[in-house]
Amino acid sequence: MSPKSKKTGDITGLVQPSVRGLAAYHVDETPVRVKLDAMENPFPMPEPVRREIATEVRRAAINLYPDPSAKKLKQAIGSYWGIRPERMILGNGSDELIQNIIMAFGGPVLTPAPSFAMYDITPRALSQDVVTVPLTREFDLDADAVIMKARKTGARVIFLACPNNPTGNRYSDAAVRKVLANVNAAVVIDEAYYSFSGKTWMPQLAKHPNLIILRTLSKIGLAGLRVGVLTASPAVIAELNKVRLPYNINMLSQVAAMTALQHRSVLDRQIGVIVAERKKLYAALLRTPGVTPFPSETNFLLLWVEKDATRVFTALRKRGILVKNLDRPGPLKGCLRVTIGTPAENREFLKNLRSCLTTD
Amino acid sequence: MSPKSKKTGDITGLVQPSVRGLAAYHVDETPVRVKLDAMENPFPMPEPVRREIATEVRRAAINLYPDPSAKKLKQAIGSYWGIRPERMILGNGSDELIQNIIMAFGGPVLTPAPSFAMYDITPRALSQDVVTVPLTREFDLDADAVIMKARKTGARVIFLACPNNPTGNRYSDAAVRKVLANVNAAVVIDEAYYSFSGKTWMPQLAKHPNLIILRTLSKIGLAGLRVGVLTASPAVIAELNKVRLPYNINMLSQVAAMTALQHRSVLDRQIGVIVAERKKLYAALLRTPGVTPFPSETNFLLLWVEKDATRVFTALRKRGILVKNLDRPGPLKGCLRVTIGTPAENREFLKNLRSCLTTD
Repeated sequence: MSPKSKKTGDITGLVQPSVRGLAAYHVDETPVRVKLDAMENPFPMPEPVRREIATEVRRAAINLYPDPSAKKLKQAIGSYWGIRPERMILGNGSDELIQNIIMAFGGPVLTPAPSFAMYDITPRALSQDVVTVPLTREFDLDADAVIMKARKTGARVIFLACPNNPTGNRYSDAAVRKVLANVNAAVVIDEAYYSFSGKTWMPQLAKHPNLIILRTLSKIGLAGLRVGVLTASPAVIAELNKVRLPYNINMLSQVAAMTALQHRSVLDRQIGVIVAERKKLYAALLRTPGVTPFPSETNFLLLWVEKDATRVFTALRKRGILVKNLDRPGPLKGCLRVTIGTPAENREFLKNLRSCLTTD
Repeated sequence: MSPKSKKTGDITGLVQPSVRGLAAYHVDETPVRVKLDAMENPFPMPEPVRREIATEVRRAAINLYPDPSAKKLKQAIGSYWGIRPERMILGNGSDELIQNIIMAFGGPVLTPAPSFAMYDITPRALSQDVVTVPLTREFDLDADAVIMKARKTGARVIFLACPNNPTGNRYSDAAVRKVLANVNAAVVIDEAYYSFSGKTWMPQLAKHPNLIILRTLSKIGLAGLRVGVLTASPAVIAELNKVRLPYNINMLSQVAAMTALQHRSVLDRQIGVIVAERKKLYAALLRTPGVTPFPSETNFLLLWVEKDATRVFTALRKRGILVKNLDRPGPLKGCLRVTIGTPAENREFLKNLRSCLTTD
């Protein structure tokens, strides 16, 4: 090798320090009987809807690029959730919208902790600073601490998941309102779990031009399609559209989501069952010694177990039941998160959890 | 309004300067009879393949998240193109892979000009500097200028489309090889048009750990699915996986692409027709007074027209034929780009172009 060509060796040294420090996002791919780790809607679309989707897909001209502005899908989502299509941007999941927001505004990015992992990972992947502010002991937003920290660090984006993942609660309205009114930053309220709480910040959009709201089709039964939804002021939408990749929503997801959303009663019924099951499981866990469920307005429950939570997690997995292990030093020490499944899956989970808590 | 709440007004002032300066990517959405602007494969999948895709889609559990590592699709692509799945990352189109590369390595990003627009837009959307180096008069890579500019600016990523869009030619092997061996940067060879040239830099991957190769399913007939393909050294793959969004390839694109790739003979036949049609159209244009086609190893032709190219573009569009207008001051002054369509579309284009050149 000549001295010149020696230069063209390893380029991993050129990787951004913030990216080098990241670990690739870990998805537990253990094959299991009962998968309750990812906040998926456990109910498949009914056969007639699947057939309808398949028919539309057969007709789709997949040799052509998809509609870059996904006009028809935006209309369908708009009428499902009452959002004006021209105030909407769609993403390849909310994940991509989180990325777009940080691309447009830059960091520092402020996120309460514990909250959704991507609020922490995405800024780092974009070499932006992350500032975390602990939630209160009740998992509520500490508005004063957020405002102070935002000012001190010059945070440009603040992510508030409401309801919050993985804690399951909604932050108090007063705390959110206080943050909204007292920071010079984009405040992103992520309403991924809106359908299970029924509470929204959308009416505040007119009053607060710094408010950005996220929704997703993932939790209501369409996680496979990867469609995230963002609404904000027209000025913010215009800026975000500049960083959005032009063909970010593929043709089949557009077609399938449009078709599924025409069946509102199917989606509503499934969501109704999930909420009823959450309440049932919550009540059953309250009656179960050795475990404390936290109140939830989502499609999952955060649990604190008396025994070593990681051992309980492992024992459950051995029995073919996958939940999310959150047991690490900090506010979630001793905690597991379980997604609400079908009635049968929830019974399975409860039976096995009780057995793990008493025998193992 | 209290003085405090006055602060929470317009946040567009917080948008990154580089993003503010961008225009949203423009897609010409004029409805036309003959759409030859976007390098799409004009042939739809045959009905039996569409039915097969629809059947797989009907079976897909779209209520669940897609396989985050798209294992089966990687295997299908791997056997189609001879790439080891573990040396592969898939993107939501190459667009997303271009974004991931810049996220991982940062800027400055060097791109020859003229070349693919996203090499210029994406770094700006990520607030990274862009350095452009003109191609030679023959649209070849000016290796010495690239190397000098890369060293001077500390460029960390260099994009080389090979064949190049919108010029249609491949850069000379010697020039590419010289750049590869003499820069301390990630050199991305974008082989989006590989199927129409048959030439690849893949064998050089073992020798040049700074080489990253892009492919895409878009040009071979699956643009609607948005599947870009990247291969590089294992070390680079590991770093890029850290910035990749975990569920970036949706379930239906995974299922549909896998199914389509099982029909290699269908794809190969379509590509064969496109290449034959390109040669035919090129020869016909050579014989046409007032227009000069440039040699192409892609599924499009760059044309120089004697008359005002923008007027020719507009006249064609009025007749229901959409091509890409590249007529701007600079090396592409007077140029249009036309995608190879079906035999009937190409005849339509040729007839109307001739008529525009003589009458308008």
